[in-house]
Formats: sequence, structure tokens, C-alpha cells
Amino acid sequence: MTSTSSTAGTLARASLNTATVKHTSLAEAVAAAARAGLGWFGPWREQVAELGAVEVRRIIEGAGLGISSLCRGGFLTAADPKGIAATIEDNTHAIEEAEALGTHELIMVVGGLPARSAPGAGPRPDATAADRDIVAVRARVADRLADLAPIARAHGIRLVLEPLHPIFAADRAVVSTLGQALDLAAPFDADVVGVVVDTYHVWWDPDLRASIARAGAEGRLASYQVCDWNLPLAADALNSRHFVGDGYIDFATITSWVSEAGYRGPIETEIFNEDVWAAPVQETADRVARDLSEFVLPYVS
Amino acid sequence: MTSTSSTAGTLARASLNTATVKHTSLAEAVAAAARAGLGWFGPWREQVAELGAVEVRRIIEGAGLGISSLCRGGFLTAADPKGIAATIEDNTHAIEEAEALGTHELIMVVGGLPARSAPGAGPRPDATAADRDIVAVRARVADRLADLAPIARAHGIRLVLEPLHPIFAADRAVVSTLGQALDLAAPFDADVVGVVVDTYHVWWDPDLRASIARAGAEGRLASYQVCDWNLPLAADALNSRHFVGDGYIDFATITSWVSEAGYRGPIETEIFNEDVWAAPVQETADRVARDLSEFVLPYVS
Repeated sequence: MTSTSSTAGTLARASLNTATVKHTSLAEAVAAAARAGLGWFGPWREQVAELGAVEVRRIIEGAGLGISSLCRGGFLTAADPKGIAATIEDNTHAIEEAEALGTHELIMVVGGLPARSAPGAGPRPDATAADRDIVAVRARVADRLADLAPIARAHGIRLVLEPLHPIFAADRAVVSTLGQALDLAAPFDADVVGVVVDTYHVWWDPDLRASIARAGAEGRLASYQVCDWNLPLAADALNSRHFVGDGYIDFATITSWVSEAGYRGPIETEIFNEDVWAAPVQETADRVARDLSEFVLPYVS
Repeated sequence: MTSTSSTAGTLARASLNTATVKHTSLAEAVAAAARAGLGWFGPWREQVAELGAVEVRRIIEGAGLGISSLCRGGFLTAADPKGIAATIEDNTHAIEEAEALGTHELIMVVGGLPARSAPGAGPRPDATAADRDIVAVRARVADRLADLAPIARAHGIRLVLEPLHPIFAADRAVVSTLGQALDLAAPFDADVVGVVVDTYHVWWDPDLRASIARAGAEGRLASYQVCDWNLPLAADALNSRHFVGDGYIDFATITSWVSEAGYRGPIETEIFNEDVWAAPVQETADRVARDLSEFVLPYVS
């Protein structure tokens, strides 16, 4: 399945990321997405681990949907040889899984500071100054990309760097802006290392328009993910993502920038939110379709 | 009182911002700062409103401390003529208060999106697409700076733009990076519009080193504020600031960048944190002095 200009502004461009309906079986989630009229579906590695890539692909493609991307590889910030070897091994598996799924795009969350004790928590008691050295950590991310790029190329997969909102810089991603992701991608072919625009993470960036245009000009715009920023934040900030239209983000403007940059691929809704997870899956899929139709698809070209 | 090279790396450079001890009277807070050996004190407009600028100045200078800055003006994002007029009037008062205090630096938090219902809460039910147009809101910030700069100049005051962490982009400040603040300051003389580096807000920024160097080269580095980023976030993210050394920030590196950029002014600890506010004021002032001596002052030149 491919998107063409004839699908511009239609739900055929829309994708449901399985993280939005994480307490539902893959088969039920895919069926709900198909009934809602969406054209694509985005699995995570958890489903591949549970069912195998062949079965995940059969379920999604059997429902007539395309596989927009695989979430996610990454966590590239280990400093010790054993940690580095484990990072390369795990991401090689992720690359192989993406290939088996038949998707081109492997989303990568690069990882946080080694000082962290756990996601969402403070530093380890024994964390050193070096564990807080974010400049050095970013250099290691670049080193690991250099290790992984030839592997990705050999499997026909693109490593898609996801800048995360700076709220997650300590514990999940030392890559915080689209421009920074593009700088990290620059040494590699556009078909091997790309970037994703996730509105939740980048909506605030004063350089966003220029960085989206640059990503398009470089051929690195690999995915467009949408959900809304709202306040107050959830107790776990990670799960503070909201339905498109419920918060502060200007989807009309950002979507038009993404379209002007030449992006013609799937537009994926990815929401981490306890209330959304508690809702019936079809209700969520239908709401995703309605929100995209109202706030996003009219601005797609 | 001035800072000279002879005070480099000593507590004579250190300032206590009154927001760190907000449930204490100004006189008690100033006395605690003086006993802890700090050389400076940073009041807010609340104390000026309560006691008058003359009395605030008498209390701080009477204890042998300098006044490092006044917090804060700003909130420049109103779109309607009445709101714009009120913004100019309020900031003119802030400029006059800074002059009466004898400080040169008026810290400015520029304000969030007009869509907001309240700080820390979601959008108003009647918020429009225009209320979410962050590009237009930023243009209004530039317009208000153009209105206020001549007034500041006439009073010998510098408007000091504070980029806030992107977690606050919706409700408190559409200026999120130091580079963006410098771009907004660029049309004005360095003595009229400057910037502040607050570690909490900018530690994650991949362009931080370059932006600090630029701020120094342009003569706009007006203040250096320190506190730490830790997880989990407090229920009100605004009050999630921590003692230096308790979190993820690499103070050695950022402090050395600020020093290399030529900054020789006060180094101010500003912590919003319910636990810190509940502690005895002298304990807090002593902790501030100890943390600065361990994590910050050794890297000052």
C-alpha cells in the first residue's frame, strides 16, 4: 500500500499507533483502525516479541492496512563496552524485525543520561559528573549511529531519529530538537538515517518551520506523528499526551509546514494516556479519525 | 557593591533569590543570606508592592548585600488594545521599580499562549486557532519589546529576557531557547535588552554553548541563575526546581561556558519547591552557599 496524491487529505493517509490502544490485542486494534477508515497501522516491538513479525504483518496487511513504521529502537547512550555491545545487538534485532514487517522506517529514541536511576526518577546515588555530561553522551549517540547505519543499510531500513520534548532530556532522549536530529543524521545517506516530526515533542521549537523545511529538502522526513500538548501534565509526564484538538498545539500550521516540505507518507496518531487506554478501542479509533479529519487532514497537500 | 576579579569563585558572587524562601519576610531572608556569606540578593516585585522600593533597597543594602536583579516584568502576549495598554503600563511600573532599587537588570518572562485558561491548566473552552498561533504570539512579544525598550533606556534599566523550559511554552513563555531570546534582543542595544541563563530552563539545549558564547560576545549576558532539574516532576511543574547538585544538570560545564563568555556578575540561586519553602530560612541559605561552593564556584573565572 502506498500513499499517492489522490489520498491527500483523506483518512487513507492516517495511521493508528498501537501505543494509543496499548491494552488491546493487536488484532482488535487493527480491526478498529480499519473500521474507522484509517489506511495504516504502526506496531511496536512488543507485538513483534509476542506474536512474531510474520504474524504481526499478516494481521495488519490482512486487514488491508499498511505498516507505517516500527517503534522503536535506540537507547544508544551506554558508555561501557558491554553496554555498547548490547545496544548494537538489540538495535540489530530491531532492524531485522522492521525488515520482516516490510516497513522502511525504524523509529529511534536515543536514550537519556547515564546518571538516571530509572525513567521518570532522579539520578543514581553513585552518579558521577561524567554521567551528567550531556555533550559527551550526545557524542556517543553519534558513534552508535555510525555503528548501526551500515547494518540498517544492509537490511534496507532507515533509522528514524525522534527528538523528544526537553522534559525527557534527562531520562529518555538527549536529542531534543529536530535541528539537532538532522545534524546527527547529516553524515549518513537520507535513505539510512531520517527524522520524525512528533507534534507533542517539537511544537514549541522556535526553529521548527526551518527544521521541517530542511528535513524535507534533505529527504529525511520519514514520519509525521500527531497528538496534543495539554496541561496539567499527568503524574507520569510520559502519559500526558492528548487527542488532537484537546490542547495547545497549532496543527493547521505544523501540518502545512510538513506538507510544504514534501512529506506524503502516513500521519500517525500516537497517544500515551491512561484515560485513552481505558476507553473502548473502537471509540478511540473513531475519535482519532474524527480529530484528524477536523484538525490535520484539511491542511495536507 | 560590585563584583571584581578578586571575588571570582567566592561567595561574594553568590545571590539568593527571594523566590527560594518565599514564605519568609524580606528582612529575615536577607539576614539569612548575609549570615551565609552571600554577596547579593534578588527581590521580586511582590516585596516592592508590599514594602515599597525604598524600604526593600534599605533592607538589602543595609545588610551589606547588592541587589542583583528585579523579578519580574513581562507577560507581553496580549492581542487586544486594552491588554496591550495594560502590558505597557505594568512593565513601565516594573522599570521604575528597578530604577528605584538601584539595579540595572529587570528579568522578563514573556508570557504564554492566549489560548491558556490559567497557568498550568488547559486552554479556555472558547480558545480559537489564533490563540494557538505561537508564531504570531512571538511576533507580538517583539512588538512589545519595541514599545518598552525606549522606556527602559530612559530609566537606565535593561530588559532581561528569560527563556523558559519548553514545558512552560503553553502557559508561561513562548521564548524557549537562549538563541531565540538573543534573536529577539538583536534589534536593541545590549545595554537595553539582555538575556539570563537559568540552568533549569536551558540545560538540555544542544545549542547552549554557542548561544552562551554569543550572548557574551554581544554583551547581553545579564544574569546567571542556578538550580537543578530532577525527576519526578512536582505536581505543579513550576515548583519542581531543586538544590544545585540534587539532579541531572552538569553545573561544572555550564558554569565554565558562562565564565568563558565573560560573565562576572552575581550567580543567583532561584528554587521554587514546596519542600524548600517549608524549611527554616537559615538552613536554606546555608545549603545554597554550600552547594554553590561545591558545584558552581570552582568553575568560575
